[in-house]
Amino acid sequence: MAAAQPGRLFLVPAPLDFGCAEVVPLDQLMPAGTIAIAAGLTHWICENAKSARSYLKRIAELQPLALPLREQTIVELPRHVHKKGDHAGEFDARHLLAPALQGHDVGLVSEAGMPAIADPGSSVVRAAHELGVPVVPLVGPASLLLTLAASGLNGQNFAFVGYLPQEPAQRTQRIRELESRARERGQTQQVIENPNPNPGQWVAQV
Amino acid sequence: MAAAQPGRLFLVPAPLDFGCAEVVPLDQLMPAGTIAIAAGLTHWICENAKSARSYLKRIAELQPLALPLREQTIVELPRHVHKKGDHAGEFDARHLLAPALQGHDVGLVSEAGMPAIADPGSSVVRAAHELGVPVVPLVGPASLLLTLAASGLNGQNFAFVGYLPQEPAQRTQRIRELESRARERGQTQQVIENPNPNPGQWVAQV
Repeated sequence: MAAAQPGRLFLVPAPLDFGCAEVVPLDQLMPAGTIAIAAGLTHWICENAKSARSYLKRIAELQPLALPLREQTIVELPRHVHKKGDHAGEFDARHLLAPALQGHDVGLVSEAGMPAIADPGSSVVRAAHELGVPVVPLVGPASLLLTLAASGLNGQNFAFVGYLPQEPAQRTQRIRELESRARERGQTQQVIENPNPNPGQWVAQV
Repeated sequence: MAAAQPGRLFLVPAPLDFGCAEVVPLDQLMPAGTIAIAAGLTHWICENAKSARSYLKRIAELQPLALPLREQTIVELPRHVHKKGDHAGEFDARHLLAPALQGHDVGLVSEAGMPAIADPGSSVVRAAHELGVPVVPLVGPASLLLTLAASGLNGQNFAFVGYLPQEPAQRTQRIRELESRARERGQTQQVIENPNPNPGQWVAQV
């Protein structure tokens, strides 16, 4: 049965040091408000349950969790959503928000950075809007914006276009297409690359 | 004379409540690391000295400043840079980084949010790269990304294109152009609007 008042969907950013040897203390990179809200949640939708648990362990070092980790409800987005993405609207995530309809606040978290930006999660946000569940994005690291600001390239007009194709001819063609957009519009074109196990990215503008 | 080792240019995000009646405590929205670095700086480049000082006063309530406010060096970007923007590369900001060449760390701050993103500042970042001054972006609020994540629209492929024209015919034409890009590419088109004295924005995708 639905609660009189649904819970909220919090978009909880995660640190960017996933898989890195050097780890900065969490409270140096995340606002206290974000950490306090995350510590108070007991229901999670995540990209990967193992890394969500490991993130919650780091939060617990700073602030007691509302429930012990083993008692938290943590559900993963289905594997095919990771692979194909959920931005095109094919995946209906409404069933994942059942706890919110029962009145629980729910956290959405991805492997690193802001959920639903260059990461899965937008299907859950759309489902929340459809179900009347309020969506609250929390402040935290977002690699795309940090990189763009530090690049010195045009931050008044920019596009993030995801990954480049791996196949060499397609890759060259894609880079030329992005170069031509950058030239015609003065629009910074930002892509994401994964040259090694740690995510990295670069920004291109002609 | 240039120091053996230049200072760094820190991109210091500012809270998004500029001009709002309701103000959230700064440490709820900004990571302790960002606040500590900002409190330690004594040289600033800003969009508006008055609001930079008012931000520093809020920081000082949480952490003692390295120098009293009246002894800090705070320089504004020239007025024509605010109006026309500095993203097109016409403004040479190298002279503003003289303190960095003398070995001082320098903070770049705008009125709200991340400097150089939908705000002036990219000329200073480019000048830093030209002069060999390391650029360090700090984590904090960025309205574009928070809005995009909370919209549920495609966050794997999106463009931020700044303000819409004010003139009605041009405005309609621009919206049609953005609609057509969104449709052809499945690319979220994000614009910024200023319907009242407080900045607001919306996100559009067909």
